[in-house]
Amino acid sequence: MTHSRTVELEGHIIDSGAMQRCFGAVMDLGGSFDVEQFDVGKHETEESYCRLTVSADDAETLRAILHELHQNGAVLESPSDVELVAAPEDKVVPPNFYSTTNHPTEVLYDGEWIDVERIEMDCALVVEPEPAADAGEGSRAEASADAGSAAAPRAYTKTLNAVTEGDLIATDQSGIRVNPPERPRSGGGAFGFMQGGVSAERPSESTIRQVAEELRAVKEDGGNVMVVAGPAVIHSGAGDALADLVAAGYVDALSAGNGFATHDLERSIYGTSLGMNVETLEHPRKGHKHHIWTISEIIRAGGIEAAVEEGIVTEGVMYQCVERDVDTVLAGSIRDDGPLPDTITDAVEAQNAIREQAHDADIVIMLATLLHSVAVGNCLPSTTKTVCVDINPATVTQLLDRGSAQAVGMVTDIGTFVPTLAEFVLEGDDEGRGVRGE
Amino acid sequence: MTHSRTVELEGHIIDSGAMQRCFGAVMDLGGSFDVEQFDVGKHETEESYCRLTVSADDAETLRAILHELHQNGAVLESPSDVELVAAPEDKVVPPNFYSTTNHPTEVLYDGEWIDVERIEMDCALVVEPEPAADAGEGSRAEASADAGSAAAPRAYTKTLNAVTEGDLIATDQSGIRVNPPERPRSGGGAFGFMQGGVSAERPSESTIRQVAEELRAVKEDGGNVMVVAGPAVIHSGAGDALADLVAAGYVDALSAGNGFATHDLERSIYGTSLGMNVETLEHPRKGHKHHIWTISEIIRAGGIEAAVEEGIVTEGVMYQCVERDVDTVLAGSIRDDGPLPDTITDAVEAQNAIREQAHDADIVIMLATLLHSVAVGNCLPSTTKTVCVDINPATVTQLLDRGSAQAVGMVTDIGTFVPTLAEFVLEGDDEGRGVRGE
Amino acid sequence: MTHSRTVELEGHIIDSGAMQRCFGAVMDLGGSFDVEQFDVGKHETEESYCRLTVSADDAETLRAILHELHQNGAVLESPSDVELVAAPEDKVVPPNFYSTTNHPTEVLYDGEWIDVERIEMDCALVVEPEPAADAGEGSRAEASADAGSAAAPRAYTKTLNAVTEGDLIATDQSGIRVNPPERPRSGGGAFGFMQGGVSAERPSESTIRQVAEELRAVKEDGGNVMVVAGPAVIHSGAGDALADLVAAGYVDALSAGNGFATHDLERSIYGTSLGMNVETLEHPRKGHKHHIWTISEIIRAGGIEAAVEEGIVTEGVMYQCVERDVDTVLAGSIRDDGPLPDTITDAVEAQNAIREQAHDADIVIMLATLLHSVAVGNCLPSTTKTVCVDINPATVTQLLDRGSAQAVGMVTDIGTFVPTLAEFVLEGDDEGRGVRGE
Amino acid sequence: MTHSRTVELEGHIIDSGAMQRCFGAVMDLGGSFDVEQFDVGKHETEESYCRLTVSADDAETLRAILHELHQNGAVLESPSDVELVAAPEDKVVPPNFYSTTNHPTEVLYDGEWIDVERIEMDCALVVEPEPAADAGEGSRAEASADAGSAAAPRAYTKTLNAVTEGDLIATDQSGIRVNPPERPRSGGGAFGFMQGGVSAERPSESTIRQVAEELRAVKEDGGNVMVVAGPAVIHSGAGDALADLVAAGYVDALSAGNGFATHDLERSIYGTSLGMNVETLEHPRKGHKHHIWTISEIIRAGGIEAAVEEGIVTEGVMYQCVERDVDTVLAGSIRDDGPLPDTITDAVEAQNAIREQAHDADIVIMLATLLHSVAVGNCLPSTTKTVCVDINPATVTQLLDRGSAQAVGMVTDIGTFVPTLAEFVLEGDDEGRGVRGE
Repeated sequence: MTHSRTVELEGHIIDSGAMQRCFGAVMDLGGSFDVEQFDVGKHETEESYCRLTVSADDAETLRAILHELHQNGAVLESPSDVELVAAPEDKVVPPNFYSTTNHPTEVLYDGEWIDVERIEMDCALVVEPEPAADAGEGSRAEASADAGSAAAPRAYTKTLNAVTEGDLIATDQSGIRVNPPERPRSGGGAFGFMQGGVSAERPSESTIRQVAEELRAVKEDGGNVMVVAGPAVIHSGAGDALADLVAAGYVDALSAGNGFATHDLERSIYGTSLGMNVETLEHPRKGHKHHIWTISEIIRAGGIEAAVEEGIVTEGVMYQCVERDVDTVLAGSIRDDGPLPDTITDAVEAQNAIREQAHDADIVIMLATLLHSVAVGNCLPSTTKTVCVDINPATVTQLLDRGSAQAVGMVTDIGTFVPTLAEFVLEGDDEGRGVRGE
Repeated sequence: MTHSRTVELEGHIIDSGAMQRCFGAVMDLGGSFDVEQFDVGKHETEESYCRLTVSADDAETLRAILHELHQNGAVLESPSDVELVAAPEDKVVPPNFYSTTNHPTEVLYDGEWIDVERIEMDCALVVEPEPAADAGEGSRAEASADAGSAAAPRAYTKTLNAVTEGDLIATDQSGIRVNPPERPRSGGGAFGFMQGGVSAERPSESTIRQVAEELRAVKEDGGNVMVVAGPAVIHSGAGDALADLVAAGYVDALSAGNGFATHDLERSIYGTSLGMNVETLEHPRKGHKHHIWTISEIIRAGGIEAAVEEGIVTEGVMYQCVERDVDTVLAGSIRDDGPLPDTITDAVEAQNAIREQAHDADIVIMLATLLHSVAVGNCLPSTTKTVCVDINPATVTQLLDRGSAQAVGMVTDIGTFVPTLAEFVLEGDDEGRGVRGE
Repeated sequence: MTHSRTVELEGHIIDSGAMQRCFGAVMDLGGSFDVEQFDVGKHETEESYCRLTVSADDAETLRAILHELHQNGAVLESPSDVELVAAPEDKVVPPNFYSTTNHPTEVLYDGEWIDVERIEMDCALVVEPEPAADAGEGSRAEASADAGSAAAPRAYTKTLNAVTEGDLIATDQSGIRVNPPERPRSGGGAFGFMQGGVSAERPSESTIRQVAEELRAVKEDGGNVMVVAGPAVIHSGAGDALADLVAAGYVDALSAGNGFATHDLERSIYGTSLGMNVETLEHPRKGHKHHIWTISEIIRAGGIEAAVEEGIVTEGVMYQCVERDVDTVLAGSIRDDGPLPDTITDAVEAQNAIREQAHDADIVIMLATLLHSVAVGNCLPSTTKTVCVDINPATVTQLLDRGSAQAVGMVTDIGTFVPTLAEFVLEGDDEGRGVRGE
Repeated sequence: MTHSRTVELEGHIIDSGAMQRCFGAVMDLGGSFDVEQFDVGKHETEESYCRLTVSADDAETLRAILHELHQNGAVLESPSDVELVAAPEDKVVPPNFYSTTNHPTEVLYDGEWIDVERIEMDCALVVEPEPAADAGEGSRAEASADAGSAAAPRAYTKTLNAVTEGDLIATDQSGIRVNPPERPRSGGGAFGFMQGGVSAERPSESTIRQVAEELRAVKEDGGNVMVVAGPAVIHSGAGDALADLVAAGYVDALSAGNGFATHDLERSIYGTSLGMNVETLEHPRKGHKHHIWTISEIIRAGGIEAAVEEGIVTEGVMYQCVERDVDTVLAGSIRDDGPLPDTITDAVEAQNAIREQAHDADIVIMLATLLHSVAVGNCLPSTTKTVCVDINPATVTQLLDRGSAQAVGMVTDIGTFVPTLAEFVLEGDDEGRGVRGE
């Protein structure tokens, strides 16, 4: 017996690749389709519309096909309201729960399409029919809660961890509409559209210049720049350049780990007080003693901010972050020494802190860290601009493989990338276009 | 002033991604389009048709856009005959010559669409209006020349090197039609469609099993299997497994270098005569003395075949290739020791020999060599199935980035890949389905 | 003014490379040396002795030189007792504290050389002059505490985190003796001596066979095998093979993360109950819905062991670990979904659990995870045998770069490595040499 | 029966690692040793001496041990004259021929130690007892031949390819003395001693600065700088910076391939004549048409120099090489398009041209090409300073793994490395220390 359903797609569904992926999914999964209507946008600014009926030999195959089509923006014809089922207990979702994508999403509730707040992939989708006036206090939805709209239903994502018994969780995918990214109407330069790989044949300095221009543009629009940095930034000698960017006001949030911070602090403390000179490359051993001593000193002082106040730390990225009041999250990991008292050692707590940073960011610059970049990437909607830089092509490919609307990946040396980026960003300031003078 | 032209596309232009790429190219290059007709294939087996007018502010931009559209299968509306210009001298093409893609191509000559023979990218396209009875003798087109068709015009590719004064070379792109690959109508399993990257998350043994099945299928259909092998195949201990595949008749052509052959021969000569045992890992130095001695012995014998006859070489890949009369090309390079007398040291001559192998192949297995794989890949039409295996993800990505219709890339260890492949291929033989007994 | 000190080295100081590194360090750091006595071991079984005076122009340079010499086993002539200073507060070390290496170490206390317990690098070295009868209860030294020796002084390492106010911490390096690894008196086969790099030219299957033999040998000697595994083990299809090794009793401890466990559990749950088949490679999307649902189900059941008892999980690595009562640590990280209730989310707590595993291990097999392998490696003495396997050469190099006495690194595909290893290990069992029946 | 021989070592045999490797080889290969005399150099400037007797159970093992010892500088006690055997035919060496290392080497002939000329690894060692006045004409030894010394015996290396019937070839290893590199008596900075790996943790810009200083120092001493460059130098946008270095006189020899030259020439031709701008990253396709057209134009002109004279090529690396009369070798390969008429397509001929460049070089900078770098590296004595730069750590490791006395390897992006290097090298010129004004 043939099972079939009719779905609709609209928007720039050809140039975004949605139609291609939908047709491909039907064929790859062994189904067939019947296009009932196809109105193509006549110009690059006009949207297209497609209604097609999808068939398969069995219900399971049809379900798999519809799942793929849904991910690419297809909606069941004449959709009914989202199906909500109460979470049976804390941190447990009902069978057949709907798992979110990282694309903008709407749910049909009570006949109205509602935007889903705090979009993030692999979450549950919770609908609150009648949010209380203080709805979301302490919850993930708090950012957009306001008293006036208390009566209107709301929808937002929740990680499994945050699900509480009784939450109304969306199941199946009827009544849910996903809007995958559309190709920018004009060329994106270095920022590729939904680019999952990375070209090593691109001119390095020209690409860095375009990133610099984007960074300046985001700041000029009052946007939020988030930097995710691994310890290699410091090892490779790029700490000063990153500190310069922070000092000039180009970094709003820093997401890093205990290692990054400790190496940076160690450079500040040992670079001046004991006469060790990273520039001469003469230190034959890894100097882990300095590493531990740095942590010990920061613990003694009571934390990084206290150490800055005490005059122990007088330069570097962490110093500038304290001075510029940059939103800083140091997440712990099992390979940490110490850790510093500022490090959040609980993974769930740290992830929640990173989530807040990620949701605020307009552009995220990921510098030579797979662990922290993946953690941030997991929380980002596909609409956030992303720059991924690593010496390892596999890392860059993995980080870009999230279907971001605009992303640039570079396989390059962080030790030359950051200084070059800082030079390009800051040389603009000399021409009076900078943010330094704020 | 606006410049514009009207083009047509037909075929499975949505699921092949051609429409997406065409729309994207217009926008990325700053043009605009007007879709005049769009008939979508109603079912997965029905083709689509699109006629669109493309406009740009200047002739140069329009030309760039039309170039991109052409590459993706678009043809100028009401195309006129291909424009032919005689090559001004040997190895020199006329201005605005047409450079081929690796997709199946036709030219409109005297009002008739003619298939272009020996498709290969980055070549000149030569039309012979009235081929002589011995047309193509000694030329690249000889394979398909036959006396009966002497009067019909022919078209074929020629590398720059092969162009001779007076050759009629296609220029511009009017009267030329490219057919980019279409997505297979059913799932390709491990063989991805026009896949330019590589997933490291695919189960290794399952993927190898699918390659093994494809290899058996090609042989069962009487197809030609070409193996491109680097020296790492021998270093990593996979030589015996490859020799087994050759012995069982699964390899029709071997394309390798002087290093591969010498390492293989050295293993044969030293593995038995001097008691060195690669298996014990006990040889502390690189043994280049054996390497040179092996070459010296083969030179003394008068070549590999002579050495096999003389009984100097009694096992290994080269031995089996001699025994099975496998079409073998050893191409020289500047890092060679020796070289062996069988090695073709002239790059152009070697490339031509590789080209013959590539044009005959139905499936190409590229094993741990960037140099030889790129050389082979340059000569392959996009319709040839390809398997690329390397430990370096950048190599696999580069090799797959040619728009092959069906390709599989694996980032894996050649030292375990080949033995596993051989096991999967040959275990089928035990079930009586093999080619060994043919 | 010239500053100088006299030091002594003894043991196999030439073939271990200690003399070379000492002479090199003096010259690289700008000092000079005067060999006062050098008695070379006349045979490979005889130890050597060297007494040399090292000089430098300033005290700081001399201190740096002596630090390097100390790391390589040099001891000050006529050493005095270790200098102990009380930790000024919790988690704070005194100035000039001694930071441990990962080599066996002794301290001179009250005129006696005492072995330092629980050797691990980058720790403080604590001496307890008169351990109480319950010394070490709850401390890191508990394992070796016994009532009878309560009166004898003890020395052990403490991470900065574990330092408590008043701990007697070793400072400077006088009275401390390090014993760097010595080259095995016979060839180590695949297990290289203090090997910091990795040869990709080694025959893969022969190397895996030697690892298999070592694994069997360790088990036959009643040793403890620790496996550190990343999620790629499951993605690459190697889960069944690892489960077989666990089932056959070859794994005593498993150190992994939430991702590894969830992927493995998901395969068990979805591989049988919903008919998804990893082997066919047909699942087009990443199936994160299954991922989250798996975690939700385990949470509902109350943990992995409960899920096994409930019959939800019936195969796979985690199932076998529960069945065989394998010491399992799942450490959380900021990129986790969920996490599973069995995951230790606090980094310090998780690190301490890993530390216990590491100190018990006789051989550690690190499979495709940088994060967990570094965490384990940080806790290992240089005397523990180590096997590091990863597709990324930089990962293998980093993991081996710890001066292990016996280590093997392989740049290979985990998806073929684990099945091949399991085959080689378990085929021995068929010959009656196995541990399965124990 | 025990077989034994006595050998001697002298020099800085401890800090060069020679003693360690010798002792290790004996033990790894299952032999034993008896140190009969060991006089250690008392100061860093004093040499050491060791005489030891090595024993093994069989002649084959002893031979293998002596081979290893020889490679590390050991000489048989009371050595006899080198054993010479005439080559039986062209390109064929006698059994048991001696295969050279890349270290400085001497042969004992007629009771005198003679320096071996043109040291290069994996060659035959030829002795000419009485060189004719025109000795070496057309042979590899011609460079050092002069009439006055015609009567003195000479020794030099010959590749297998160059061996001619009757050449007196050294066999076995008696009467041959190898001098492995010694550690520089003061720190080498970035230039590590016999460094086979590469540290990614080194500060990038500081390392580049040290390379720049070394480059300036070599030029100031009148030395010869050889650059080996791959096409990625141009793709990555670093062509201008390299052209600047050539223009300023910092490059004496360029060794590259057809691809490098063509990309560079294409940039020159298309960068100005057709308005394409690499800087804007806007060219969506690979532009192979330009590539082929460039080659066609150079062929038409009659070669690169002719094209420069004709005004077709007006900038770029090749332009500057023509203008500065830089010794340029373009070696062909099987992946070439064209090739350019300047390209040497025969591998043996190309290798010989590269060999001449390599033997003249005082420092070699290898930029993002494995093929050409290996070819050059094969011809270099271990005493030539080497800098290897590549984004792929495996490439850098392979290139450094030749036991060079002074080498630096960087895993970095060529697209930022070359501009940064040029900046550091040329900024010195502004301070009046440059070579530009010569």
